Amino acid sequence: MNRRQLFTLSALSTLVSSVNASVKHVQKTITRSPFQPVKTLGVPTAAWQFKAGAKEFHLIAEPVVRQFANNFYVNAWGYNGSTPGPTIEVIEGDRVRILVTNKLPEKTSVHWHGLILPNGMDGVGGLTQTHIPVGETYVYEFIAKDSGTFMYHSHSDEMFQMAMGAMGMFIVHPKHPHFRPVDHDFAFMLMSWDIDAGTYTPKPHTMTDFNTWSMNSLVFPAIPHMVVKQGDRVRIRLANLSMTNHPIHLHGHRFKVSATDGGWIPEALQYADVTTDVPVGAIRVIEFIADNLGDWAFHCHKSHHTMGPMGHSLRNMLGVKHDDIAAKVQKLMPEQHVMAMGENGMGDMGEMVMSLPENTLPMMTGQGPFGSIEMGGMFTVLKVRQELPAQGEDVGWYTHPKGTVAAPYRP
Amino acid sequence: MNRRQLFTLSALSTLVSSVNASVKHVQKTITRSPFQPVKTLGVPTAAWQFKAGAKEFHLIAEPVVRQFANNFYVNAWGYNGSTPGPTIEVIEGDRVRILVTNKLPEKTSVHWHGLILPNGMDGVGGLTQTHIPVGETYVYEFIAKDSGTFMYHSHSDEMFQMAMGAMGMFIVHPKHPHFRPVDHDFAFMLMSWDIDAGTYTPKPHTMTDFNTWSMNSLVFPAIPHMVVKQGDRVRIRLANLSMTNHPIHLHGHRFKVSATDGGWIPEALQYADVTTDVPVGAIRVIEFIADNLGDWAFHCHKSHHTMGPMGHSLRNMLGVKHDDIAAKVQKLMPEQHVMAMGENGMGDMGEMVMSLPENTLPMMTGQGPFGSIEMGGMFTVLKVRQELPAQGEDVGWYTHPKGTVAAPYRP
Amino acid sequence: MNRRQLFTLSALSTLVSSVNASVKHVQKTITRSPFQPVKTLGVPTAAWQFKAGAKEFHLIAEPVVRQFANNFYVNAWGYNGSTPGPTIEVIEGDRVRILVTNKLPEKTSVHWHGLILPNGMDGVGGLTQTHIPVGETYVYEFIAKDSGTFMYHSHSDEMFQMAMGAMGMFIVHPKHPHFRPVDHDFAFMLMSWDIDAGTYTPKPHTMTDFNTWSMNSLVFPAIPHMVVKQGDRVRIRLANLSMTNHPIHLHGHRFKVSATDGGWIPEALQYADVTTDVPVGAIRVIEFIADNLGDWAFHCHKSHHTMGPMGHSLRNMLGVKHDDIAAKVQKLMPEQHVMAMGENGMGDMGEMVMSLPENTLPMMTGQGPFGSIEMGGMFTVLKVRQELPAQGEDVGWYTHPKGTVAAPYRP
Repeated sequence: MNRRQLFTLSALSTLVSSVNASVKHVQKTITRSPFQPVKTLGVPTAAWQFKAGAKEFHLIAEPVVRQFANNFYVNAWGYNGSTPGPTIEVIEGDRVRILVTNKLPEKTSVHWHGLILPNGMDGVGGLTQTHIPVGETYVYEFIAKDSGTFMYHSHSDEMFQMAMGAMGMFIVHPKHPHFRPVDHDFAFMLMSWDIDAGTYTPKPHTMTDFNTWSMNSLVFPAIPHMVVKQGDRVRIRLANLSMTNHPIHLHGHRFKVSATDGGWIPEALQYADVTTDVPVGAIRVIEFIADNLGDWAFHCHKSHHTMGPMGHSLRNMLGVKHDDIAAKVQKLMPEQHVMAMGENGMGDMGEMVMSLPENTLPMMTGQGPFGSIEMGGMFTVLKVRQELPAQGEDVGWYTHPKGTVAAPYRP
Repeated sequence: MNRRQLFTLSALSTLVSSVNASVKHVQKTITRSPFQPVKTLGVPTAAWQFKAGAKEFHLIAEPVVRQFANNFYVNAWGYNGSTPGPTIEVIEGDRVRILVTNKLPEKTSVHWHGLILPNGMDGVGGLTQTHIPVGETYVYEFIAKDSGTFMYHSHSDEMFQMAMGAMGMFIVHPKHPHFRPVDHDFAFMLMSWDIDAGTYTPKPHTMTDFNTWSMNSLVFPAIPHMVVKQGDRVRIRLANLSMTNHPIHLHGHRFKVSATDGGWIPEALQYADVTTDVPVGAIRVIEFIADNLGDWAFHCHKSHHTMGPMGHSLRNMLGVKHDDIAAKVQKLMPEQHVMAMGENGMGDMGEMVMSLPENTLPMMTGQGPFGSIEMGGMFTVLKVRQELPAQGEDVGWYTHPKGTVAAPYRP
Repeated sequence: MNRRQLFTLSALSTLVSSVNASVKHVQKTITRSPFQPVKTLGVPTAAWQFKAGAKEFHLIAEPVVRQFANNFYVNAWGYNGSTPGPTIEVIEGDRVRILVTNKLPEKTSVHWHGLILPNGMDGVGGLTQTHIPVGETYVYEFIAKDSGTFMYHSHSDEMFQMAMGAMGMFIVHPKHPHFRPVDHDFAFMLMSWDIDAGTYTPKPHTMTDFNTWSMNSLVFPAIPHMVVKQGDRVRIRLANLSMTNHPIHLHGHRFKVSATDGGWIPEALQYADVTTDVPVGAIRVIEFIADNLGDWAFHCHKSHHTMGPMGHSLRNMLGVKHDDIAAKVQKLMPEQHVMAMGENGMGDMGEMVMSLPENTLPMMTGQGPFGSIEMGGMFTVLKVRQELPAQGEDVGWYTHPKGTVAAPYRP
């Protein structure tokens, strides 16, 4: 077991609390593999066994309770106890067999997005196969012809089942281990949800007014950090199954978009960028050398997508003095939650002790080395260090060289 | 008359019922042409006559009643009885004259999007020309300098007139018939509409909360299928004049984006993809070899855009038992439409017999070979066959080779 | 002082009325520079002085009253009396020192979007530095390593402060003056705002339903025109810090996208286009030869984004006769504003004399040479002329050669 595998395990450990306890599937340990395993942070890798000439996976479509962050649980739909479902990893040319058991309350099917396969294995309920009835297991079998980054998701009552989280990543590693090798290979599934304050179940008919934006069905500050060594080559695979583009922005580095769900982009056609706009139903893979030491923000640049689920229907209180009014109203309505907010902006939210409805994530949480980071949703951190820490040790925040931090001006 | 022209006619025949009967314009037959005609499925090709040194077209801007699907009619604005208007097809270097008669209830003008022409022919009402008054005919004349895929649309009270459907495709074929030839050349205009259940007229002030997403002002299952022979080279021209990006996804094949409304993309700069995000006010042309037999979904990947116009303001009933409540309420309100929906998801909608408001498309219709396809809006099918059927014969659904369809698992 | 600098001054003069009178910062004259200055139309260029080995700038984050158009003022947040803040221009390799004084009512910080710098200078409050307390001045210092088009914006209470306008452009000119030289270099910051009719303060919690779309915090017809000479090479730098993509469309010309916030795109990878979809948190730089004489529309192609802030919640009156009803209602409610609108479309709005709420821009204003242009929001004009006018002279509208303007058809 090498260092990389340890980091995968470390990332997986953050998942434990979010796995529906009722799920009994044993995630088999993946043995030494010829490829760099993908780290879908906070999401397990799918187990398989070699059987009748194929790598056989088993996906169980089922309701899951997913912990998006501390004290914030969501009634979702997923696979094998997780949303997104476990990441499937195979090698170019592999014969793949996938058993899909339907434990959802309605029929389902699974589409293998981006994979080139026989029409009857395409998973479009009604068009290419019978919808899988409740309680039944269907089998898909095909050869993973091309390496690349793909997805799987429901294609039966699609809007509803995808809005509930029925999706996962599907990675096909190149046959040749020297094809575009990297030191770290991360994956994130981008999703949006509309979960009313105090409730647990997403509203699957919402089209544009979502209030929760997740990476791997986790929200800041619960999204694990990416920890790498200075000089490492890093790949991040971004998949979007939400309802709007997500312009993902990396601080401190320039990356190149190296692939989509349509395959690898020739190197001669790549160019440097710092924000990649990931369309819906699409994948953008970015690659870069992590040459800049520090703690670098990595987030969606739609600023509402780096906020928590609360507060988007607030009145505009900017410039309105109302602290005392709030206190008076609170006395009259002791059962209600009354706050004075926004008089001078919202930046103090992160430090406010608020009485919140049940199962509601505060708008801004997450302490950094210099105070509240004042973020939520699709935000995490790339940590670039001179040396990686010992096994299981927290890398902590970056120690800045003297004189390199913005500070009070003393002329 | 060759096979290709027959397919065009076949596609046009689906249009007949949707053409406003009051329109008397004779669509003149297009004679033998040096290019592969574009099939704007469900939309006529514009007729022209050679006159005074130019190909002369006549567009009549007018209200139209467009049939979007079975039992779903829309009061729209368009040209020559159709929305989108008839597709204009000319050849690179042609002198083009277009008469525009304004039969709308307000002034109008027509902009030729993407074409490079003299400023006074650009069609921006107030800026480059006087708005065309009601009842008058204006004339535009210019040389189609560059081959490519363009659009025409109102540029007078633009938001309103475009929201009502005043738009069409404008194709300039390359002068050299061997420049990037294809076997099939399809075109789709992507649009969104906000039509309240039980009404016929789109709300032109809607900005984001649309409920009807169309391709060529048709919605699934009324959008004609694309039928091609295995090995054919296929081009699909996608134009977007709605209010949001449409990530169009093709199953079973990888395509390359070969052109935009700015012209042809050099072949050396193209790369494989499976989803192309068509921006608003832009065109993406995709090309591929149809080498994979079967019935392949082709759709927008924003899952709400593959739904019908009903149901987006529904309460979240997931997990709520309410069948009997609905029955009781129905007794109390025999004039109202009461349904129990969403208790276990929405997948059964496609098979439900519902009492619907007038002129309302059910949310999920369209039967496939394996049951309800459970889609709506921007969804159609690419059918790839070993042989094309005889004239006028329906190609039917794909016959899968034995053992190639996802099926119940029998270990 | 050459002609180009004069145009900059001319553009700046339009700004005078919008600068908060209380701001006393002296904008120092920029002396002869080795690069073509960027014209951020309607926005000042940041002054600097060379001090202790660096170009030292001083940004004062503070509330500003910005005049978006005639009779339309917005209570915003910005820098040095302007939103967007003054454009910072330096040269590749420059050591840059930026003092940031916080005169906002809450803490802040400034992120230098796209610039590669030491982690502690990245400006992410809480993560890479302490938030700048109210009343304090912090200092940032770094080397502008790479030439390109970047941005600066608040990264503290980010959603709120950006929604209020705390942003600006940051240009790093190439060290070598012959690297991709142009004759004109324009810059626009694209933003959206939600300002209720009759009010002055944007609602910072709005996510999708904005009603005001601005370029450099100005709206049509107040956005200065771009005036160039035929044959000039023109660059336009487009930055988007709103909440949705803006597909910017140029009439009469084909451009190439030459750079993003990630740097210059190699020339071999560029191709012709007429619409570029600028993602959120990203930059698209376009370049073209202005070879087509005339007055060319330049605008966002989402048609609601070329409308004024009024009228997006209107009922659909198309086809409803209601002129007399409006008159009757007006008599009953003399204090209210009653209008009959939309019976035949909205095109007459531009010519209507309406009684409007305070501080409300009519939906369609702006007269062109041929009548009302019927636009608003993100719309301006590129004027291409054979000769540029003398100093300070208005170039006026284009004089079309005889017979080149769309006109009534006289067969």
